[in-house]
Amino acid sequence: MAICTVYSTHSLDSTCSISTPTKTHLGFNQKQVVFFTTGKRMVKRGGGYKITCSADKTVVIGLAADSGCGKSTFMRRLTSVFGGAAEPPKGGNPDSNTLISDTTTVICLDDYHSLDRTGRKEKGVTALDPRANNFGLMYEQVKALKDGIAVEKPIYNHVTGLLDPPETIKPPKILVIEGLHPMFDQRVRDLLDFSLYLDISNEVKFAWKIQRDMAERGHSLESIKASIEARKPDFEAYIDPQRQYADAVIEVLPTQLIPGDNEGKTLRVRLIMREGVKYFSPVYLFDEGSTISWIPCGRKLTCSYPGIKFFYGPETYFGNEVSVLEMDGQFDRLDELIYVESHLSNLSTKFYGEVTQQMLKHSDFPGSNNGTGLFQTIIGLKIRDLYEQILASKAAAPLEASKA
Amino acid sequence: MAICTVYSTHSLDSTCSISTPTKTHLGFNQKQVVFFTTGKRMVKRGGGYKITCSADKTVVIGLAADSGCGKSTFMRRLTSVFGGAAEPPKGGNPDSNTLISDTTTVICLDDYHSLDRTGRKEKGVTALDPRANNFGLMYEQVKALKDGIAVEKPIYNHVTGLLDPPETIKPPKILVIEGLHPMFDQRVRDLLDFSLYLDISNEVKFAWKIQRDMAERGHSLESIKASIEARKPDFEAYIDPQRQYADAVIEVLPTQLIPGDNEGKTLRVRLIMREGVKYFSPVYLFDEGSTISWIPCGRKLTCSYPGIKFFYGPETYFGNEVSVLEMDGQFDRLDELIYVESHLSNLSTKFYGEVTQQMLKHSDFPGSNNGTGLFQTIIGLKIRDLYEQILASKAAAPLEASKA
Repeated sequence: MAICTVYSTHSLDSTCSISTPTKTHLGFNQKQVVFFTTGKRMVKRGGGYKITCSADKTVVIGLAADSGCGKSTFMRRLTSVFGGAAEPPKGGNPDSNTLISDTTTVICLDDYHSLDRTGRKEKGVTALDPRANNFGLMYEQVKALKDGIAVEKPIYNHVTGLLDPPETIKPPKILVIEGLHPMFDQRVRDLLDFSLYLDISNEVKFAWKIQRDMAERGHSLESIKASIEARKPDFEAYIDPQRQYADAVIEVLPTQLIPGDNEGKTLRVRLIMREGVKYFSPVYLFDEGSTISWIPCGRKLTCSYPGIKFFYGPETYFGNEVSVLEMDGQFDRLDELIYVESHLSNLSTKFYGEVTQQMLKHSDFPGSNNGTGLFQTIIGLKIRDLYEQILASKAAAPLEASKA
Repeated sequence: MAICTVYSTHSLDSTCSISTPTKTHLGFNQKQVVFFTTGKRMVKRGGGYKITCSADKTVVIGLAADSGCGKSTFMRRLTSVFGGAAEPPKGGNPDSNTLISDTTTVICLDDYHSLDRTGRKEKGVTALDPRANNFGLMYEQVKALKDGIAVEKPIYNHVTGLLDPPETIKPPKILVIEGLHPMFDQRVRDLLDFSLYLDISNEVKFAWKIQRDMAERGHSLESIKASIEARKPDFEAYIDPQRQYADAVIEVLPTQLIPGDNEGKTLRVRLIMREGVKYFSPVYLFDEGSTISWIPCGRKLTCSYPGIKFFYGPETYFGNEVSVLEMDGQFDRLDELIYVESHLSNLSTKFYGEVTQQMLKHSDFPGSNNGTGLFQTIIGLKIRDLYEQILASKAAAPLEASKA
């Protein structure tokens, strides 16, 4: 298999070597010429494919969520943390699902649909069904990108419902694979340096869908209910179980501050962070490892009804030890947000107030005044930190090896 | 009235003046010769009374509680904070109720009973009834002591039930008046620099009485119940309402950690601290003014069943703004105590760990492993701080005056 043995080339004092292995990939069958190098990326066309190798192996992040559940907002928050804006590839297919920024490339896993819309209809499977997706190709291409090799990724055209000709994806510093199944296939899962699952409760999903499809698109309540119900069996069978593999889960629930509220306007959002994940130390409130509920609104901070309530504590999630940080309610003013930030620890910020600054910068993004925005921003900072730690560990590793 | 106008003598550059006012006191009727001085105490016999005047006006603390409710333990904790041990006056009445240490004199307000045991029986009043107590004398003598004048205080002999000949009480640095009615009479109340009410809930009182009177003294359950019931009407009429005037209340309740528990072994203790009291800033947990519940037992600290739970938050108590700090459960080990101390603020300690050190020093005192001991110790530290602030403000006042 074509991999960049980066550490050994480092210890060989930047000498490059060339290997010509042969391998059958599910998606492309060819000879690959791999240029080993350190510190910079080389691109060479070979049989119609760009092949790149880099000393800085790509960090791979998996983001799982149902469609229309805030993935794109999260991506915008994440790329903003790194200082750039994500845009579709220039000059390519206008219906490309890919977003590229200086550091990050986001690919949509819908591109690995093995069946197009007609095909799914004929076979009677939904897009959620693994049989409609090519996990072999997904694995091969994520693996290649992680190893610093460019790939020709298919494009699923959401407008036409067809599979368009592929686009070239170069290995970025950070590759985000987002979609329905980033943690479904074990081989793909094992490639992930960090994984996040956006878990929107049925109540909130329903409230949001009503808001969008009924108020804005004129759909009937019945048709909305029917469309949700139709997705449920496959969602529960194939998407939902991925939660157990996630390093972090953002759970979005109806508020508990207003009894009986189901409007989905005020939200209770839980950030579930797995313990013992390499390069990821969970955020905590006041006192690490203990159980705390906190209502910051009081004498020093006056919040409007129904206020804000935080919870933090250790829990068990799918048999794993996790730390949970929960926010119920929403911010009305800046001073509430900075006040909350001041009591959170392990945020991986580079300066005091960075969370607040990021939130304010994108105050027009959905969820900027509640836990979804706060926790997406925090996870963005944690991913930046994880990326920098991996980078640092790689820089240190060959040094250690040469000492030995 | 005989008062030491300390500030003016200070500003007169330590010149002493003598005044001979005449006043009828309820307890003693005489001419008083008052020696004004600064920084030291002069004692002169005059008509059988010692008269003392000092620049350091006595700080007066009121401590209200039902009999047998931990007042003496609190006194021992308080004097320990000041570094001395409290003992009965040397060479006096062996049945004296007074306790004296280097800084503190504790007088028992039972000494102001106007009716002895027989007298109360004849008139059909309990010791809780104001008619059995001489508030006029209580006021005059506390006032005199506060002004630096020694008094001849009566002694109520708890053994004989009779009023014994008086004992001389010199004005101490800190005078604690403890008993049933320190905040009952408005004149006495106005003399208090700080007041504390020990509020033991009926359930806990009952459990404690059973423990002591039934297990240790062989009383029957019925007689215990009857004696509690007999005290109730007067207690509710005259003692309990004093809570509204207290600067701090220590409330002792059954635990909520063990459902249905009424044994009185595990306790939920609440420290209710009034806001806006001069020289007294309430203790807080993590974040001043917000509402927090905290279970310190978790990954970093392992507590045995049923664990420990803290609560902190703003509340209203008798129409006044208060901060409440609550501890449910008990400490099993030192590391639990120091861990809790590390997260409390405004403790008025002189070094980190002083609360824990005080608690360990007296680990044999009742309540040392629960909130009663913790909060009594904390209040002891707060009183030391209050005393030092009053002292400092007096030292600064004449300086300010001479500048003006």
